[in-house]
Amino acid sequence: MKIPEILLIESEHKPGSLAKILAVLAEAGLVVEHLVTVRREQGRTVWEITIDMDEESDLGVFDKIDALPNARVLGKSDRVFNRHRGGKIRIVSSQEIGSQQILRDLYTPGVARVCLAIQADPAKAWEYTNLPNTVAIVTDGSAVLGLGNIGPVAGLPVMEGKAALFASLAGISGVPILMNTQDPDEIVAAVAAIAPSFGAIQLEDIGAPACFEIESQLVSLLDKPVLHDDQHGTAVVALAAVRNAGRLAGQLLSDSVVGQVGLGAAGYGIARLLRARGTRTLLGADVDLAAVSRFEALGGQAADLARVMQEADIVIATTGVRGLIKPEMVRKGQVVLALTNPDPEIEPRDARAAGASFAADGKSINNVLGFPGLFRGALDARATRFTDAMLLSAAEAIADQAGENELVPDALNPAVHRAVAEAVKTAAEA
Amino acid sequence: MKIPEILLIESEHKPGSLAKILAVLAEAGLVVEHLVTVRREQGRTVWEITIDMDEESDLGVFDKIDALPNARVLGKSDRVFNRHRGGKIRIVSSQEIGSQQILRDLYTPGVARVCLAIQADPAKAWEYTNLPNTVAIVTDGSAVLGLGNIGPVAGLPVMEGKAALFASLAGISGVPILMNTQDPDEIVAAVAAIAPSFGAIQLEDIGAPACFEIESQLVSLLDKPVLHDDQHGTAVVALAAVRNAGRLAGQLLSDSVVGQVGLGAAGYGIARLLRARGTRTLLGADVDLAAVSRFEALGGQAADLARVMQEADIVIATTGVRGLIKPEMVRKGQVVLALTNPDPEIEPRDARAAGASFAADGKSINNVLGFPGLFRGALDARATRFTDAMLLSAAEAIADQAGENELVPDALNPAVHRAVAEAVKTAAEA
Repeated sequence: MKIPEILLIESEHKPGSLAKILAVLAEAGLVVEHLVTVRREQGRTVWEITIDMDEESDLGVFDKIDALPNARVLGKSDRVFNRHRGGKIRIVSSQEIGSQQILRDLYTPGVARVCLAIQADPAKAWEYTNLPNTVAIVTDGSAVLGLGNIGPVAGLPVMEGKAALFASLAGISGVPILMNTQDPDEIVAAVAAIAPSFGAIQLEDIGAPACFEIESQLVSLLDKPVLHDDQHGTAVVALAAVRNAGRLAGQLLSDSVVGQVGLGAAGYGIARLLRARGTRTLLGADVDLAAVSRFEALGGQAADLARVMQEADIVIATTGVRGLIKPEMVRKGQVVLALTNPDPEIEPRDARAAGASFAADGKSINNVLGFPGLFRGALDARATRFTDAMLLSAAEAIADQAGENELVPDALNPAVHRAVAEAVKTAAEA
Repeated sequence: MKIPEILLIESEHKPGSLAKILAVLAEAGLVVEHLVTVRREQGRTVWEITIDMDEESDLGVFDKIDALPNARVLGKSDRVFNRHRGGKIRIVSSQEIGSQQILRDLYTPGVARVCLAIQADPAKAWEYTNLPNTVAIVTDGSAVLGLGNIGPVAGLPVMEGKAALFASLAGISGVPILMNTQDPDEIVAAVAAIAPSFGAIQLEDIGAPACFEIESQLVSLLDKPVLHDDQHGTAVVALAAVRNAGRLAGQLLSDSVVGQVGLGAAGYGIARLLRARGTRTLLGADVDLAAVSRFEALGGQAADLARVMQEADIVIATTGVRGLIKPEMVRKGQVVLALTNPDPEIEPRDARAAGASFAADGKSINNVLGFPGLFRGALDARATRFTDAMLLSAAEAIADQAGENELVPDALNPAVHRAVAEAVKTAAEA
């Protein structure tokens, strides 16, 4: 796993000081990601140098820099942990409460009239509260990223990350809800009990098969949109990438053989949406026989990894197993989407080196392209559920936003999320 | 109920135009709360005039202004509703997500390492997530302010108001959690199921007797602070006011006869804390016999309203009944705290006119003085529960912050909340 490391290094202010430091890093095979002069004083300069390290990086590099005649490592820090310190989200008051008059308007006694107005007409809650912007991000921590069942509190940084992205990309208040149970019935009961708090519900990082039962029960129970993001959000983004891969390869999706490696929540969601979109030949491999049966029920054909890799024009891997796909398995011209996070089944550069026409991993084919706009659109339409039409429209919108030679667009481009939201809203209202 | 109304009025730009408008308002008995010139153009001026209206105000006043030769009402709007539009809180990202590097640090792949660090050492969640600042604000909407059982969604503006105050006054992220049930066992089960999401739990506007059972069950089940604000938050602030009233009247609290009118959640919480603080003679009246029994179990003496008003040195009313206390019931020199919101049992000015030495209502003796610091202190101490020592310390801190002739300090003074948090933290760690 790549660890961004920030080095604070002091050097003498003379020619070659920095060059020598960089030479040490270069010898260790480390790429400089970012470099900035922090300060200059008394013939010395302090540099902040950011490098990505992983388990195989030579930690001796710091001593080697220290051993240089003109340099000294002042300290190092971990950028990822620094950025997480204190948490990634917070709730703020929409307006400053700077006077007694504002206090009395926002709280007692003024608030009472707003309460009574909503009691008389519950739809007014959409006008006078944050409800139409509020989405629960519910997890039991049973399948966090590709890390497995690490529990809900250990999964909280992912939920806060999603909430930070909801806020930044769609103006949505995402509320992490961590379940103290992994029992599907208890999860359904608890989410249904607190459902009035939210305009919509995002289920997140809940493992298969519990996720299917939880989602379908909540969809029936609640009159608001419920979406298991690992299934459908991932599927929407994968479908967008697959559509553009086919376009770039000059091949219709309905004529392509799509092969899936891994048929858990994400794999199932992708298979379901591919079938809804008209994919005829769908091969799938998984060690879990129940998962294979669910896949077959969708019209997929069971296969093993070798056959998927041999026959598929487009390979989509969602196994949680780092490095499962070896370069020698990749067929020339194949599209390879290795979506497990944080470590993919095959690094895209290795897949391309092995002959893949297009290859990408879960860092770019990421559901952050989907979920902000999916929920924004559903909320704006006041939809009571997500339909396949909404999901397919979202995938088209994402695909349309990609550049000429891209599978998917830049997730930080606000236009992408506006386009997705608009497409979803239109589909919901159709 | 007072309704702040904002009038936009256009007048000819000549002497006396505004005076005539104000004369119409004066004749109608309306006080100008705020007045500002919005614009001046072509011999005309547009004024924004804010007045407080209530049910008894003469709505014909608008027509009378319109009928003036030089004035015209352009429109009116309701400041309280304007301030509620779009909701009072939102969740924001703590940092701008402006680059792929930041995205990859805050979300996948970087976030995975933070997840694993918390899995290895759950205490790290307090360092790398917003958990130590996050408080659930749980309601079933069964006893919202003095409005009664209006349901959880109609109660949401109160919960958002509390969350806005948490954010402004204590840096706490308050998450409104609206329960879809008023069954105590279901509420307990749901709150326990989602408890990992929060550093502490505030129960809010849940009616008696369900509130007692829900709180005591959650206190036993959870290893984090749980507080029913209507009981204990109100009690803390009431105790602070009572202490200062005693000080100003030169009387020890233990020697005073305290009389309570209304023994619901707030009344019970106040009685409990007064007893913990050493009040010997406590009279209480309520139409609910079960409430009276609970009060007697605390050592209080049952009485009727007339006896409470005749014998008590300090009267504390929490009935939810507007205007229950008539001026002729007030004894000379009595302290009268009529705490029902939005409309008190007796207006403080009427109580003072009837001879009360001190009188206040729930707008000033408000639990906003208590809950932000109570929770900040408990979270900062990493307390697992609220103790009486913490509540009593909070009351002392609030009382100490009041000015020479005040019962309680200004709720918008940040020093008050810092002092309460510090006192609670110290008591928790003692």
